Amino acid sequence: MIVVMRADATEVQVEQVVDTLKKFGFTAHLSKGVERTVIGAIGDKSGLDKRVIEMLPGVSELVPIRKPYKLVSREIHSKDSIIKISDQVSIGGNSPVVVMAGPCAVENETMIIEIAKTVKAAGATVLRGGAFKPRTSPYSFQGLGETGLKYMAQARKETGLPIATEVMDTRDVELVAKYADILQIGARNMQNFNLLKEVGKTKKPILLKRGPAATIEELLMSAEYIYAEGNPNIIFCERGIKTMENYTRNTLDLSAVPVIKSLSHLPVIADPSHGTGKWDLVEPMALAAVASGAHGLMIEVHPHPESAQSDGPQSLTYKNFTVLMQKVRAIEKVIRS
Amino acid sequence: MIVVMRADATEVQVEQVVDTLKKFGFTAHLSKGVERTVIGAIGDKSGLDKRVIEMLPGVSELVPIRKPYKLVSREIHSKDSIIKISDQVSIGGNSPVVVMAGPCAVENETMIIEIAKTVKAAGATVLRGGAFKPRTSPYSFQGLGETGLKYMAQARKETGLPIATEVMDTRDVELVAKYADILQIGARNMQNFNLLKEVGKTKKPILLKRGPAATIEELLMSAEYIYAEGNPNIIFCERGIKTMENYTRNTLDLSAVPVIKSLSHLPVIADPSHGTGKWDLVEPMALAAVASGAHGLMIEVHPHPESAQSDGPQSLTYKNFTVLMQKVRAIEKVIRS
Amino acid sequence: MIVVMRADATEVQVEQVVDTLKKFGFTAHLSKGVERTVIGAIGDKSGLDKRVIEMLPGVSELVPIRKPYKLVSREIHSKDSIIKISDQVSIGGNSPVVVMAGPCAVENETMIIEIAKTVKAAGATVLRGGAFKPRTSPYSFQGLGETGLKYMAQARKETGLPIATEVMDTRDVELVAKYADILQIGARNMQNFNLLKEVGKTKKPILLKRGPAATIEELLMSAEYIYAEGNPNIIFCERGIKTMENYTRNTLDLSAVPVIKSLSHLPVIADPSHGTGKWDLVEPMALAAVASGAHGLMIEVHPHPESAQSDGPQSLTYKNFTVLMQKVRAIEKVIRS
Amino acid sequence: MIVVMRADATEVQVEQVVDTLKKFGFTAHLSKGVERTVIGAIGDKSGLDKRVIEMLPGVSELVPIRKPYKLVSREIHSKDSIIKISDQVSIGGNSPVVVMAGPCAVENETMIIEIAKTVKAAGATVLRGGAFKPRTSPYSFQGLGETGLKYMAQARKETGLPIATEVMDTRDVELVAKYADILQIGARNMQNFNLLKEVGKTKKPILLKRGPAATIEELLMSAEYIYAEGNPNIIFCERGIKTMENYTRNTLDLSAVPVIKSLSHLPVIADPSHGTGKWDLVEPMALAAVASGAHGLMIEVHPHPESAQSDGPQSLTYKNFTVLMQKVRAIEKVIRS
Repeated sequence: MIVVMRADATEVQVEQVVDTLKKFGFTAHLSKGVERTVIGAIGDKSGLDKRVIEMLPGVSELVPIRKPYKLVSREIHSKDSIIKISDQVSIGGNSPVVVMAGPCAVENETMIIEIAKTVKAAGATVLRGGAFKPRTSPYSFQGLGETGLKYMAQARKETGLPIATEVMDTRDVELVAKYADILQIGARNMQNFNLLKEVGKTKKPILLKRGPAATIEELLMSAEYIYAEGNPNIIFCERGIKTMENYTRNTLDLSAVPVIKSLSHLPVIADPSHGTGKWDLVEPMALAAVASGAHGLMIEVHPHPESAQSDGPQSLTYKNFTVLMQKVRAIEKVIRS
Repeated sequence: MIVVMRADATEVQVEQVVDTLKKFGFTAHLSKGVERTVIGAIGDKSGLDKRVIEMLPGVSELVPIRKPYKLVSREIHSKDSIIKISDQVSIGGNSPVVVMAGPCAVENETMIIEIAKTVKAAGATVLRGGAFKPRTSPYSFQGLGETGLKYMAQARKETGLPIATEVMDTRDVELVAKYADILQIGARNMQNFNLLKEVGKTKKPILLKRGPAATIEELLMSAEYIYAEGNPNIIFCERGIKTMENYTRNTLDLSAVPVIKSLSHLPVIADPSHGTGKWDLVEPMALAAVASGAHGLMIEVHPHPESAQSDGPQSLTYKNFTVLMQKVRAIEKVIRS
Repeated sequence: MIVVMRADATEVQVEQVVDTLKKFGFTAHLSKGVERTVIGAIGDKSGLDKRVIEMLPGVSELVPIRKPYKLVSREIHSKDSIIKISDQVSIGGNSPVVVMAGPCAVENETMIIEIAKTVKAAGATVLRGGAFKPRTSPYSFQGLGETGLKYMAQARKETGLPIATEVMDTRDVELVAKYADILQIGARNMQNFNLLKEVGKTKKPILLKRGPAATIEELLMSAEYIYAEGNPNIIFCERGIKTMENYTRNTLDLSAVPVIKSLSHLPVIADPSHGTGKWDLVEPMALAAVASGAHGLMIEVHPHPESAQSDGPQSLTYKNFTVLMQKVRAIEKVIRS
Repeated sequence: MIVVMRADATEVQVEQVVDTLKKFGFTAHLSKGVERTVIGAIGDKSGLDKRVIEMLPGVSELVPIRKPYKLVSREIHSKDSIIKISDQVSIGGNSPVVVMAGPCAVENETMIIEIAKTVKAAGATVLRGGAFKPRTSPYSFQGLGETGLKYMAQARKETGLPIATEVMDTRDVELVAKYADILQIGARNMQNFNLLKEVGKTKKPILLKRGPAATIEELLMSAEYIYAEGNPNIIFCERGIKTMENYTRNTLDLSAVPVIKSLSHLPVIADPSHGTGKWDLVEPMALAAVASGAHGLMIEVHPHPESAQSDGPQSLTYKNFTVLMQKVRAIEKVIRS
């Protein structure tokens, strides 16, 4: 950490900074310039809120020289992590683009099995579906709960597709982990730290969605919570952030894909369905995501989007999904060549 | 709900919209203009995602004519709700401005008792303090847990101040409710719907903080979750949203105060400590909040901000808090006159 | 336009709305529901601020049923516009992806000619370069002015590449139009309405960059200014918006590409150099832009980015640009097939 | 400036940074830590884009230790600047809160004179009014131009109130300066650098509005353009920024008031009319602005807001303005005591 003093800082103020740094276990090195003094602080800043130093009199600015995240950082672990989802499917590095497809919410057994078969035939490699649904309104459909998980397990049995589903409550982690191959942490729970710790205690792959106002650094810090509990199987998911643009439901920040790949060794996918909120934008943004280097996609598919119980308007029909998959594989081929 | 068709919509498309509306339980009234057809839909749209209609062919736009929130709405309940926090303290309507003051995190018993006495002497009416702390980093101090709650209870015993503290996990609601007079839902948990339902089952006043990317409507919807479970004792808290401005920790959106007062009957307070992240901005923004009509304030106070275990840089010293309180009461007098 | 009255609106309030609508030249149609009255207003709302109606007592909401833009709208002009830049180069519809490449600022004649030859050899079809530079600081290099334009004209003479350059001042439009094939309106001038009118009086293709906080609708409205003056040759450019994410210089909103294509008949390109601010993100985002359907790209290229007078850090070297172009053409082939 | 090298940076990389710094006129001081090397660079960084250094291999981060603005900075000029608007009115420091009131657009002579007299009687000290109007739509009323300026001059003659009005075009600066006492730069022109330079050549007080996506630092940099041309008479105006909240027209960032006061010696006012877009939010936010320490207010007033040619919905009636002024003066008294 480097502490830049103000041009008019006094000797006494410099000393106070040095003393405070020492109190927090740092060694301090002074470097007096013509104009101002700069203090280099060496030591472990974990647990020190950098603003504690910033508020001392005479301090102009404080510059951390370490990233706040460690285990998820590419500085620690330079090679791409590859995460095994099932015997057939892995994600990360140069593994084929993993496409997780399915309905927003599981509605009944027949429906989820039919969807599973269809998306598999089109080339999807994971089945997604919601059993516990976070809904803005308490009056909206909240999901089938464990029954939905059972239906998904049945769909897996019939197709071999591993299944990804959301867990929203610390009390449900054990239950959901019993059925799911990938535990999804929704965008609104990205900083539900107790939930992060709880899924960190399982060994399941965790799909961690970026919160709608989260910076990339905050997303990495949330993954650090999971990793620090002993679970290194983390997949990031860019699903759009909130901006002043309101034509789309969110603004899909695809630059997060190459940025995360440069900062972390963990894989990253994109969700153009939630990222745009409009089915006709899903194809162009899915292709863009693959072109930007995403390790996977999460796509909502529904046989009759207009009568879906949740998020129909952003779901693709079977036909549109099949067309999309052909283009996805063609783009993937260009990118990986 | 009103469905505006495109200028070039066909008869068949109009019929499909009417049929879909009927399927969801609406009665539909057509009004054919020179240029385009407009369909009025009467019925309960709860549970219908408005985008289901928007995605039908020929539809240009859909206009909800009811607010998605009900119980918290001023349309339902036109008079200000006044919420009783303790025998001495109520909030809302023309009740005196409630000032909730204390440290970000409870560090030890002596400290919290000393702070409680000091802020009470300066005019605070509620003691705040964190026992369970949501921290961006897993390596930061996470709070004292139940021990912290016991220390706060002791501080209440010695000063008579009711206590407000955060609950982060559905599994802790019962425990925290045993000690606290106000259960706080942190900004990052504003859409942790299971937690909202759980605190909705208690009768305690709930301090619901606005998420850093939440619209006011989303905030009201989250309160609807609590209210719908049977707990009408909800206090909103504006604590800053994330914007492109990064000089301050967040951008305190004080216009949320009069907006919430116009849309809801429930009280609203402001938290200039988190809202700005810098202690020297706390006084001007606290005074601004009172001038904007806030029913209360939440202020971080620490005897030695430079050595606080959490959020020291945004905490006021005893002296600064005492000065602030005098100005708060003077502004309050002008506003209420 | 549809005016939704409040549930508790009185007869008198409804009449006042009807009278006001008539005053502004509308015909009003009442439709009284069980719960509330809805008023359909037919007529030309140009010049009426919709909030004038919203502020009348008893009004709950107002819904415009026409888009505020006309000439640029796809509703008026359903076929893709194709804009001729030079005898060899056109943009829009299924024309090949137009790549505008070159330095942020023209530094000297030798340099711009060398860059022009290099980017042409790699496959670029337009030369970009700044002669008048909008810089955040008055102390930064402000461009060579007319001298820079002359150097660019010389580069065009030697390579045949048409040239694109920014105009910042109404007083310079004539001068810049004398040299340039494409007049660029920078992001910070997107709502400099006098400048828009002035370039609207020329017949040159105008490259209109989206402002860093502009919605897509505002961007279309700015184009409407140019079109309304008689110049239909407008090319939109997505170059990133400001968000709470500060790792990248801006957040490149690629969903704007398919959205603009659905709302307008005019072509749209993306600028990943300004959109990310970091050269290593340019390739993935350029490819993503083409995959999302962009009609073109604007890319900063510099022989020695580390010594560029402006925006070096986001410029590609010759080598990186050449590699990029091969991938661009491969992705384009997939998308157009 | 301080350059932090990566932990794995090589000797050669360190040397390249040092050489590059020297090329730009800096003296470089190395400080090798256990973990990494840090380079202090002394010299004038004006004209150096800090990203040029950041992109060098082995560089982790670069920390500027000087603010990019100088003349407007409080570090250079520690005492509050007080700007004289007329013989009677000054703004800044402890001068009374200056209230600039009037219509969004001047509509006719009778109207502007009547408003001038009314707002003066209520306590306003400057008359505002638009003659050149920046409108999102080319089809909206664009203002009366010079005729409007003449009407305002007549209103000044009859009331003695100095007048503030916007200038949008470099070609109009001389004309507008002939009539106006304060030249206003609108939010959308905050980074119209040629316009800034042009008003910098006059000696008139300049009211510089913050752009809807501008950081406070960018606002100060724009003022630097004016100051650097020789005009130190600059008044900042916070008028709201764009965020994901769309209930209000903009989000009025009142924390900008104390922040600007701490960073600059120049005065700052707030515009709650544009900042909220709704007349019923103007009073609470105007009072909040004064409580936050603003040196002045800009308020839209119109005799018949429902028939105003521009921005009626955010305008106060005479009666509401008169009530507001009494509260403004009462809050001012508390704040200044």
